[in-house]
Amino acid sequence: MVGYKFMGKAHSHAYRDLPFFFDTDVEPVLQTLVGRNQNAVRLAAEKLGWLSYETDWRRLLERDDIDVVDIGTPNGSHAEIAIAAAKAGKHVLCEKPLAMNTLQAKEMWKAAEQAGVVHMICHNYRFAPAVQWAKKLIQEGVLGDIYHFRAQYLQDWIMDPQFPLVWRMRKEVTGSGTLGDLMAHSIDLARFLVGEIREVSGLLETFIKTRPVGEMSGGLEAAASGGAVAEVDVDDAAAALARFENGAVGVFEATRFAKGNRNGNRIEINGSKGSIRWEMDRMNNLELYLENDPLGIQGFRSITCTEGVHPYAGAYWPAGHPIGYEHTFINLMHEFMRGISGKGGNPSPSFEDGYRNQVVLEAIEQSATAGAKVAITY
Amino acid sequence: MVGYKFMGKAHSHAYRDLPFFFDTDVEPVLQTLVGRNQNAVRLAAEKLGWLSYETDWRRLLERDDIDVVDIGTPNGSHAEIAIAAAKAGKHVLCEKPLAMNTLQAKEMWKAAEQAGVVHMICHNYRFAPAVQWAKKLIQEGVLGDIYHFRAQYLQDWIMDPQFPLVWRMRKEVTGSGTLGDLMAHSIDLARFLVGEIREVSGLLETFIKTRPVGEMSGGLEAAASGGAVAEVDVDDAAAALARFENGAVGVFEATRFAKGNRNGNRIEINGSKGSIRWEMDRMNNLELYLENDPLGIQGFRSITCTEGVHPYAGAYWPAGHPIGYEHTFINLMHEFMRGISGKGGNPSPSFEDGYRNQVVLEAIEQSATAGAKVAITY
Amino acid sequence: MVGYKFMGKAHSHAYRDLPFFFDTDVEPVLQTLVGRNQNAVRLAAEKLGWLSYETDWRRLLERDDIDVVDIGTPNGSHAEIAIAAAKAGKHVLCEKPLAMNTLQAKEMWKAAEQAGVVHMICHNYRFAPAVQWAKKLIQEGVLGDIYHFRAQYLQDWIMDPQFPLVWRMRKEVTGSGTLGDLMAHSIDLARFLVGEIREVSGLLETFIKTRPVGEMSGGLEAAASGGAVAEVDVDDAAAALARFENGAVGVFEATRFAKGNRNGNRIEINGSKGSIRWEMDRMNNLELYLENDPLGIQGFRSITCTEGVHPYAGAYWPAGHPIGYEHTFINLMHEFMRGISGKGGNPSPSFEDGYRNQVVLEAIEQSATAGAKVAITY
Amino acid sequence: MVGYKFMGKAHSHAYRDLPFFFDTDVEPVLQTLVGRNQNAVRLAAEKLGWLSYETDWRRLLERDDIDVVDIGTPNGSHAEIAIAAAKAGKHVLCEKPLAMNTLQAKEMWKAAEQAGVVHMICHNYRFAPAVQWAKKLIQEGVLGDIYHFRAQYLQDWIMDPQFPLVWRMRKEVTGSGTLGDLMAHSIDLARFLVGEIREVSGLLETFIKTRPVGEMSGGLEAAASGGAVAEVDVDDAAAALARFENGAVGVFEATRFAKGNRNGNRIEINGSKGSIRWEMDRMNNLELYLENDPLGIQGFRSITCTEGVHPYAGAYWPAGHPIGYEHTFINLMHEFMRGISGKGGNPSPSFEDGYRNQVVLEAIEQSATAGAKVAITY
Repeated sequence: MVGYKFMGKAHSHAYRDLPFFFDTDVEPVLQTLVGRNQNAVRLAAEKLGWLSYETDWRRLLERDDIDVVDIGTPNGSHAEIAIAAAKAGKHVLCEKPLAMNTLQAKEMWKAAEQAGVVHMICHNYRFAPAVQWAKKLIQEGVLGDIYHFRAQYLQDWIMDPQFPLVWRMRKEVTGSGTLGDLMAHSIDLARFLVGEIREVSGLLETFIKTRPVGEMSGGLEAAASGGAVAEVDVDDAAAALARFENGAVGVFEATRFAKGNRNGNRIEINGSKGSIRWEMDRMNNLELYLENDPLGIQGFRSITCTEGVHPYAGAYWPAGHPIGYEHTFINLMHEFMRGISGKGGNPSPSFEDGYRNQVVLEAIEQSATAGAKVAITY
Repeated sequence: MVGYKFMGKAHSHAYRDLPFFFDTDVEPVLQTLVGRNQNAVRLAAEKLGWLSYETDWRRLLERDDIDVVDIGTPNGSHAEIAIAAAKAGKHVLCEKPLAMNTLQAKEMWKAAEQAGVVHMICHNYRFAPAVQWAKKLIQEGVLGDIYHFRAQYLQDWIMDPQFPLVWRMRKEVTGSGTLGDLMAHSIDLARFLVGEIREVSGLLETFIKTRPVGEMSGGLEAAASGGAVAEVDVDDAAAALARFENGAVGVFEATRFAKGNRNGNRIEINGSKGSIRWEMDRMNNLELYLENDPLGIQGFRSITCTEGVHPYAGAYWPAGHPIGYEHTFINLMHEFMRGISGKGGNPSPSFEDGYRNQVVLEAIEQSATAGAKVAITY
Repeated sequence: MVGYKFMGKAHSHAYRDLPFFFDTDVEPVLQTLVGRNQNAVRLAAEKLGWLSYETDWRRLLERDDIDVVDIGTPNGSHAEIAIAAAKAGKHVLCEKPLAMNTLQAKEMWKAAEQAGVVHMICHNYRFAPAVQWAKKLIQEGVLGDIYHFRAQYLQDWIMDPQFPLVWRMRKEVTGSGTLGDLMAHSIDLARFLVGEIREVSGLLETFIKTRPVGEMSGGLEAAASGGAVAEVDVDDAAAALARFENGAVGVFEATRFAKGNRNGNRIEINGSKGSIRWEMDRMNNLELYLENDPLGIQGFRSITCTEGVHPYAGAYWPAGHPIGYEHTFINLMHEFMRGISGKGGNPSPSFEDGYRNQVVLEAIEQSATAGAKVAITY
Repeated sequence: MVGYKFMGKAHSHAYRDLPFFFDTDVEPVLQTLVGRNQNAVRLAAEKLGWLSYETDWRRLLERDDIDVVDIGTPNGSHAEIAIAAAKAGKHVLCEKPLAMNTLQAKEMWKAAEQAGVVHMICHNYRFAPAVQWAKKLIQEGVLGDIYHFRAQYLQDWIMDPQFPLVWRMRKEVTGSGTLGDLMAHSIDLARFLVGEIREVSGLLETFIKTRPVGEMSGGLEAAASGGAVAEVDVDDAAAALARFENGAVGVFEATRFAKGNRNGNRIEINGSKGSIRWEMDRMNNLELYLENDPLGIQGFRSITCTEGVHPYAGAYWPAGHPIGYEHTFINLMHEFMRGISGKGGNPSPSFEDGYRNQVVLEAIEQSATAGAKVAITY
């Protein structure tokens, strides 16, 4: 695995915990953790349970005991690592957004396909049992024709103007701000649950134009400054209107300036026969309204998706015992392992999903710049 | 009062109930109810408690015992009645949206101003105590600088394709669909709580393109048909992105196709120091997050706005005893009566508010047609 | 009507507003308001809309233009007034608890029965549409056999030890504290929804043993003191375990010491086929769980009881538009008027219900004193 | 570890996952799993990650490489194993309830004390960060004097009369039904958060008197029958009123007959300065009401206890990323390991807590039988 910060921890834990909950033909072995800072990666490897560490990801490619490369680095380096890994015959799991732009994303997808390796993008929120259950209900027609999809992804961690210019706010490293970091997740949920988007109108906003740079703003590249400020060149907030291919209307909003919302990832879907609501803050619950309920007892019901019948839920605890954030990764890794074991084809979301997601993100950005709607072409 | 359907009932009740709860210098007397169908208006006058009835609203203008004209008719007739009433020296209360277009709306506003009569537009949701309290908190800077306003107004009453083409879906009578009926309320809340809007991108959608016409589709004009269908020429759903003059970003959505949402009118505001959430379904509650709460006990608090300190609440019941939909009208009428009694100037929302609201609605419509953002000029 | 404080206001409003919403053969006329303080009752009569006032309730009995006596005085005077009114052939509505003890309560019931007048006790919470709907669902067997009833009635208005000894805390005037004021409502809901109680274990507690007396502690009798304190001889909190005749287990709790709960009146019922939850803070909503929902989509659904199909709801506003506290009284008065008009027999809850409620309250008090369970005999 | 069913899985996982999240001087090694059925325990050991297995727990006592005995068996065998383990110098963690009666429980506690081993009882719900945070707030006086504690522990898994007589319903194996299984947790929370209980009145009920026995009713002892039914000799539901030593009033209810509540473990505490509410279904959230909030903005706030400042939360994920049921065990095991490493003395809840809990349970049972309140003496 390349990268050992927040996502490094989440992925490491998932690999470790996976065999306890799921029976799989393929079990992950935490071989080697990669990071540029030797001391830091050494400590991280020890803490996160990796057998060894490296400071250059290229070393992984030569090794026969490495079957999988997991990329948890800032977005700017995804393409290079993923393409090289695929070419070396390694299965690849990559954090989102897949790339810095659609061109890169397509290259990654094609490289993985040509190499015949298993490839996934880490849209973990799909793997909440309640979201998987929503997918099943929609597929079975329980909601009827879909008219509306709305999503908000609200955070508040950079609202202090003195919060430094960390890598997630530097365009050259990350590509975009909330767009690729947060709205990418919402778009993945939209595509997963409703289908492809054919047109968008976008709006991007940067509320705090400059921020201090310094120690804290590190990441792959350390900023070499003290007391200085630099321009924020990515969005603090993003919003978009969309039309789906099936005629549904989408409204998307992502921001890091919604005080009180630490990780407020919410979706709602309205169809001709019913509606659903889900939010990460109550991740085990799916709110469902059914038109066909008898008159007088219609209402949104709150389904606690911890029953054996709910996707993945049976692997954990008896009904009514909640799971948490980390289990979305365990479920995702389980699909990745199933893919590697040759079961069920290449799992979703694949690099193709990552590419299509990137196309939507890029169209939103173009629309925001042009002040006009943009048609999506894949 | 002109009109005796849903709004006729709501207004009549508010006038009747007002003196019980509020001490006012001016007390409403329910003189004359106006409607075109003589039999129906006679029955309605009796039921709603009016002393007499008329079939032509012009009669009201001549009478000395009529001080106020309240317009609860479909939108197409607002301007004519309001302008005539103002010229006749009657105070005017008008349902929303104010008019069919901005030109009409401006004429109405100017006519009322020149006549020196008290004028209000009936945006009743402003008058939920929780919304008024939100206004006070924002004015006092409790939320800091406002970054985000988001509103959804979700209904589901016309989702059945067999639901007939009632007047609220006929452009010549109503001007627009959800835009003027629902989003007008959200825009009023936005302007009231956050300020003026300077730019919008809009999207309008009609999911069900044709509907049956017939008996049920009546209104001011009866549709003369049987078994036939006609084109729906207004929007079933509307969405808009906006920028406010103060830099805040707005996201608006209104629809009559959100199954399970009978009258789901919700808003959220995020500021640099706090956030609020409110929805009509829990109209007595205001959710408030405050940055300055001590570390570890930060969280959205649910304020039940039924205390003596909350606007209008003291007039009703002891703390903790909820009020309902009708009380938003009583509170609004109370301000209208105060205006008529000469206290506090012309109350808000005035015809000017109605006009400015209309400008935003029209810009959203233009943007939706053009596929590009539109700047607001008043 | 005798009494003009909180309940006087609630009842007056309900009588006034009733004809607007309901068609009834009998329409209330607000003839005479009675209170001991001439000046206060005069002002109240004017404010609340009564045609005249009196300072002695006995005067009502002689008058032919008085058909109904409504008793909203402190509990100590209920019996005398009600019995005299019944004997004088007046229909009687009485606030809860019916009396100071079961003996008085039985006399009241028998007097009303013998006089052949219509008699009701004002347990208004029964008349929330959601509670009536719950009753219907239970009657139809939707919940199956009932296993559990639990109720909490939580308030917090006397938690300040400096809050004076008002009449609601004086045993000679009120009989009991939270027991008769709050738990009486819960017991009424229990009897209405589940059935008769056959055995109780009770606990009563007075947290603040003495309180200041003075101006504010008035009521029917003014306390003649300054700066002095007096003993609180009623309960600040009450709790009870119960067995119902049908085998269900009941758990009741009432308190005025639950900080943050202004009027937290909540119930839950669990049956073999489903469960319900209701609380006054969300009075329009009924939470319903149904065993027979398909596997995987079971969950508590939140029914907004504002549809035409829900009891009383059709009289008010379109679906999704909430009603409030005052409407529980309007609905109750509607039943009272129906009873007077000769439709449907004597309405529930009757004085017999008041008597049976009192028997349970008294048993709880006896149990609390004795430290042992007490069997209920009517 | 002895036992490998539900609790065996929960404990095994916690030991495995603990070192990933917490730095501890002592790290658990999963040496040996014990169960009576050789084949089953072999498979379980493999699945749960134990290095070896045994069929007789006595073997553990002789081994030098065993430092800890974790008892996850049905309640009837707790005492024998725990006392033997303590005498053999092993640290002991035991599932709740500690024993079959207070005498056993006291022996276990004394044995562990005399042996000088670390001893804990597995009341895991204490270890939800939100509950720990509640404890801190109460200790610091944020809630003031405590007036009320109320707890419900609602489940619904045995409501079907055809559900077989599993070991949790057999008195000889388990001691009691909901009392020891569910209410024991509520009493632990009460003692942890409010203090010792001095008096109780109890009620026990068995709704379904007989149940089928057979294969599924196994456990440590297999039932030797086919098609037959047997008497249920433990409680399906339990309720209790209590007085705490500090004057607070407690109301407890536990049941397995509350349809729709899979694992509804809820508590509320009301104090002179504030209140809290917590329920396992939203385990990361603590509802807090503070008297000292400014007038007009008082209300229950929902604190998501996932911030670095909240107990244990910093070990997991960034703020706003929920944890689940299993983390309560990880946190508990973390304290157990700290105790073993010699830090902070014997951790809570200890065997003494288990004993005191048992005393309360036994008093409730006695009270239920006698129909009178029972004083608690330790």
